[in-house]
Amino acid sequence: MKLLIPGPVTTRAEVRAAMAEDIAPWDNDFRPVLSDIRTRLLAIAGGLPETHTALALQGCGHFITEAALRSFLAPAGEPGAGRILIPAIGAYADRMARLAREAGRDVVSMDLPDQIPVDPAAVAAVLATDPAISHVGMVYSETGTGVIHDAAAIGAVVRAAGRRMIVDAVSAFGALPLDVSAQPEIDAVMFTSNKCFEGLPGLGFAVCRLDGLEANKGRAGSWSFDLQSIYEMGLRSPGSFRFTPPVQVLSAFRVALDIYQAEGGQPARLARYRANLDTLYDGILRLGLSPYAPRAHQGPVVMNTHAPADPAWNLQTFVDGLKRRGFLISNFFNTPTPSFRVGCIGAITPEDMRSFVDSVDAVLGEMQVRNRSPQPAAA
Amino acid sequence: MKLLIPGPVTTRAEVRAAMAEDIAPWDNDFRPVLSDIRTRLLAIAGGLPETHTALALQGCGHFITEAALRSFLAPAGEPGAGRILIPAIGAYADRMARLAREAGRDVVSMDLPDQIPVDPAAVAAVLATDPAISHVGMVYSETGTGVIHDAAAIGAVVRAAGRRMIVDAVSAFGALPLDVSAQPEIDAVMFTSNKCFEGLPGLGFAVCRLDGLEANKGRAGSWSFDLQSIYEMGLRSPGSFRFTPPVQVLSAFRVALDIYQAEGGQPARLARYRANLDTLYDGILRLGLSPYAPRAHQGPVVMNTHAPADPAWNLQTFVDGLKRRGFLISNFFNTPTPSFRVGCIGAITPEDMRSFVDSVDAVLGEMQVRNRSPQPAAA
Repeated sequence: MKLLIPGPVTTRAEVRAAMAEDIAPWDNDFRPVLSDIRTRLLAIAGGLPETHTALALQGCGHFITEAALRSFLAPAGEPGAGRILIPAIGAYADRMARLAREAGRDVVSMDLPDQIPVDPAAVAAVLATDPAISHVGMVYSETGTGVIHDAAAIGAVVRAAGRRMIVDAVSAFGALPLDVSAQPEIDAVMFTSNKCFEGLPGLGFAVCRLDGLEANKGRAGSWSFDLQSIYEMGLRSPGSFRFTPPVQVLSAFRVALDIYQAEGGQPARLARYRANLDTLYDGILRLGLSPYAPRAHQGPVVMNTHAPADPAWNLQTFVDGLKRRGFLISNFFNTPTPSFRVGCIGAITPEDMRSFVDSVDAVLGEMQVRNRSPQPAAA
Repeated sequence: MKLLIPGPVTTRAEVRAAMAEDIAPWDNDFRPVLSDIRTRLLAIAGGLPETHTALALQGCGHFITEAALRSFLAPAGEPGAGRILIPAIGAYADRMARLAREAGRDVVSMDLPDQIPVDPAAVAAVLATDPAISHVGMVYSETGTGVIHDAAAIGAVVRAAGRRMIVDAVSAFGALPLDVSAQPEIDAVMFTSNKCFEGLPGLGFAVCRLDGLEANKGRAGSWSFDLQSIYEMGLRSPGSFRFTPPVQVLSAFRVALDIYQAEGGQPARLARYRANLDTLYDGILRLGLSPYAPRAHQGPVVMNTHAPADPAWNLQTFVDGLKRRGFLISNFFNTPTPSFRVGCIGAITPEDMRSFVDSVDAVLGEMQVRNRSPQPAAA
């Protein structure tokens, strides 16, 4: 079964095989695994040990995002309180805003079209009118829409305005380029084990600026989500995970990183995902379906397609038909109008994507979905 | 290698084997796994669906403990603010207090000897003098000391005083008895996948009272750790984990529950762990070493032994020697004075424990540790 949900992704058997043993996380023979992972992730992000650190947290993307928001943005109503501008460009941006608000942080939003990348000039304009905004929170690859936003271009206006940035790169990091040294305005970039690195789910990571961590020390309002506390644990006891980790997931992640680097790292992974997406996008058009995002703005991570208007369309029936053919896609969608989404990431190739498109063709035929123009928004 | 650290514990090969495949957490064929786990955990805790629910959270014991504190105890300074009394009986009680304090909750402590169970009368006396105390937070099995505290007896005084209780049963639940229906003062009992249920690490669980969840709705101050939000997800979409779970760990946990129930559930597991402990305790005495907790108060989960006074003693050397013989114990301790700790839980038997004691004997011999009386506190 190929998982195109997209994330957890399809992994390679060697990665899963690393989970087959009992492991003591604080064993001296195992500690180098965490140290090695942190060192390699820092390098992949372009960080230097003098200015940055890579940290690991149990859980999922939401947890590491909340941890980063808490650890870099002081709560509302306190001295030095921050305010974060989060462009509303999809479901995951909305989630970042909710995580920040519920953690007592001051959030301002800006409405924007969700099918095109955020216009850096629009962000600059908001920053110019509100000097209390300390941070911009942005989603690099919006899993909701499939659109990639230009982290470097938005970062440039944030930097020019003397503000800071927090980047949710959960479904981007590892495949899309990002260099924290070239973008000193980035306080933290967050990602997980189970997206573009093709590991198993259970771990979040953040590459963080040391100065920002230090400046906000003691203000997280949650011991569990205090990245400074995690950083200090690493100093005190190198290789020690703070609290019990999903240690099999950690062990598998190192194997996933080995494969990542053997494949050629970020450029090679991006090229494969881009080839997957191109195969899929061409196929969707060929079948008479309508992509949600224009081709120019369609990222290589997840592609949404408008649900067809035909009354025979039913997302679950479609999902079940694809599953019988060996492909699992999500049985829900995150776009404002009905769609189906397909992941292009994971241990899959353009050949898999060709086979997937053939399966879509066959299932739509079985379902007798003839009118393939987009479902109207009201449906 | 047998893990006696104690937790993550030694698991059975069938449990680990369940992690070998890629799984989509929201696949309709997988959703029943979470539903089934929740139903079974609720029953093991003695809860009824009308009054209680079992919830799952990504992460570790600290995370589910913070989530329970946030979800049942209103923050300091807000209308209806709670106050939690946490008897200071070891490292994990201290951690509960720190989790609560950093989450902005009002915590009061009471100093108590750590080698004997908490005296319920002492708790009652504090409750009588401070009517602002809304909750008592207690650790059922203190991993730091190995002492089991009497959850039912303390619960009785909490109930009599009209207060609520939050129980950290991370290293107890599944082996030590607990019945949330017989103890209606319990708002939440927390535990994890990787202790007495003998699963892999990566998941926390809480069995919660529905009325308490509802009464504190909207006050968690963290979306990630809001148990009410997790509960609502389960109502809205049964079997859906809220946010991406470590899905292989979840799949393995169901296999671990199958084994648990086939073995005879809580009484059988307690009997095996008790037999493990008895074998260990007898062996430690026979080797001339000194247990940290008196036999009457020594729980069946983890046993601490005073570090011997002999200058040849070195914890890491001892750990390394045992490891060469196939046993892994912790290379740190959580007691106020130097000790080594050995877990009695996991997929291990009294026969393993006999072999472990022989290994301790052999390693102490190699190390030439002759003076086995306890190290003085100053050491």
